[in-house]
Amino acid sequence: MTGGGLFLTFEGIDGSGKSTQARRLAEFLRTQGREVVLTREPGGSPGAEEIRRLVLEGDPDRWSAETEILLFTAARRDHLERTIQPALDAGKIVICDRFADSTRMYQGLSRGDLRGLVDQLHELMIKREPDLTLLIDMDPETGLSRAKGRQGSEERFEDFGPDLQRRMREGFLGLAKEFPERFRVINGNRDMDSVAADVTDVVMQALR
Amino acid sequence: MTGGGLFLTFEGIDGSGKSTQARRLAEFLRTQGREVVLTREPGGSPGAEEIRRLVLEGDPDRWSAETEILLFTAARRDHLERTIQPALDAGKIVICDRFADSTRMYQGLSRGDLRGLVDQLHELMIKREPDLTLLIDMDPETGLSRAKGRQGSEERFEDFGPDLQRRMREGFLGLAKEFPERFRVINGNRDMDSVAADVTDVVMQALR
Repeated sequence: MTGGGLFLTFEGIDGSGKSTQARRLAEFLRTQGREVVLTREPGGSPGAEEIRRLVLEGDPDRWSAETEILLFTAARRDHLERTIQPALDAGKIVICDRFADSTRMYQGLSRGDLRGLVDQLHELMIKREPDLTLLIDMDPETGLSRAKGRQGSEERFEDFGPDLQRRMREGFLGLAKEFPERFRVINGNRDMDSVAADVTDVVMQALR
Repeated sequence: MTGGGLFLTFEGIDGSGKSTQARRLAEFLRTQGREVVLTREPGGSPGAEEIRRLVLEGDPDRWSAETEILLFTAARRDHLERTIQPALDAGKIVICDRFADSTRMYQGLSRGDLRGLVDQLHELMIKREPDLTLLIDMDPETGLSRAKGRQGSEERFEDFGPDLQRRMREGFLGLAKEFPERFRVINGNRDMDSVAADVTDVVMQALR
């Protein structure tokens, strides 16, 4: 709980339902009279959205993994300075769909073993971790078929197939063990209302 | 001398004549039968040029100093991977108009004391230094009036005025003392032919 606010992130593989859950949580908290900023990465501020377009559009090989990590970190720095930190300083709840844990997984694992580089860059330029991270854990096959159902031109990270989905799922569960103080794992293999009820419970406990 | 080639950079304040000297040196070396790649920063590869536009166009305050450093480092990484290193590996001479020393000065000094951060990021993501750096040293007032004469919409770093020019000049001379093994200081307060003759001497000595 920094600057009076609360910084919540949702993480999980593509198609895990985390974006839906983030939106539902924001709506619920607003009905409770809380001020909420719902945001997402990559993007979340005008500058970071421009960097997002630069990274996600066009040929998937246009950037090396290292350049991509630098661009995502630039976007995160802008997002943190312009959107997240001002909202926390004003005592608001920030709900962010993906944050540094996604970079640890997607850039740190999927394009070679770059986790050490991702962590060093985070330590140097970002420093900030969420107060609470909700990992929506999901069967990789179900996640993949859901993600494919809504695939747009920008969603190139979802092209990597079932093997990557499995490795990412295992990776996220590994992160939850690495940072047990802020991670909460929620079973996403259920109807949305049951998942949302668990999310609400965990967050209300943190707010108490 | 890495990968068979030679990596030369030109540095100096705006209006010091370094771009002209870089071009003249490239022409001279080609007449000597050398294969030369003439490039510049920020930019120098298709991806890096896109990042250049993102950084240099629009409101000067659109990025914080830290985000700007990350974007320049992303551009440099791309430039190094796609343009500089392949040319060096092919045994060519690379002449680059500005490189990491410019970031050490402009981002490291002009927007607060961020030199330490610039250096750590360089160490983590770039690592490479030029084999030889030609610093075209120039009276700050003359440099400023020259730079103003050709100012385009992109050249916002030149808006900072004579105080910054003086600090940058001192800063570059300081870098030359910090890295004496690769820096050569050339007096730029003379006619272009005399400056070019000195540049040629220094480079031919390095090639011998």
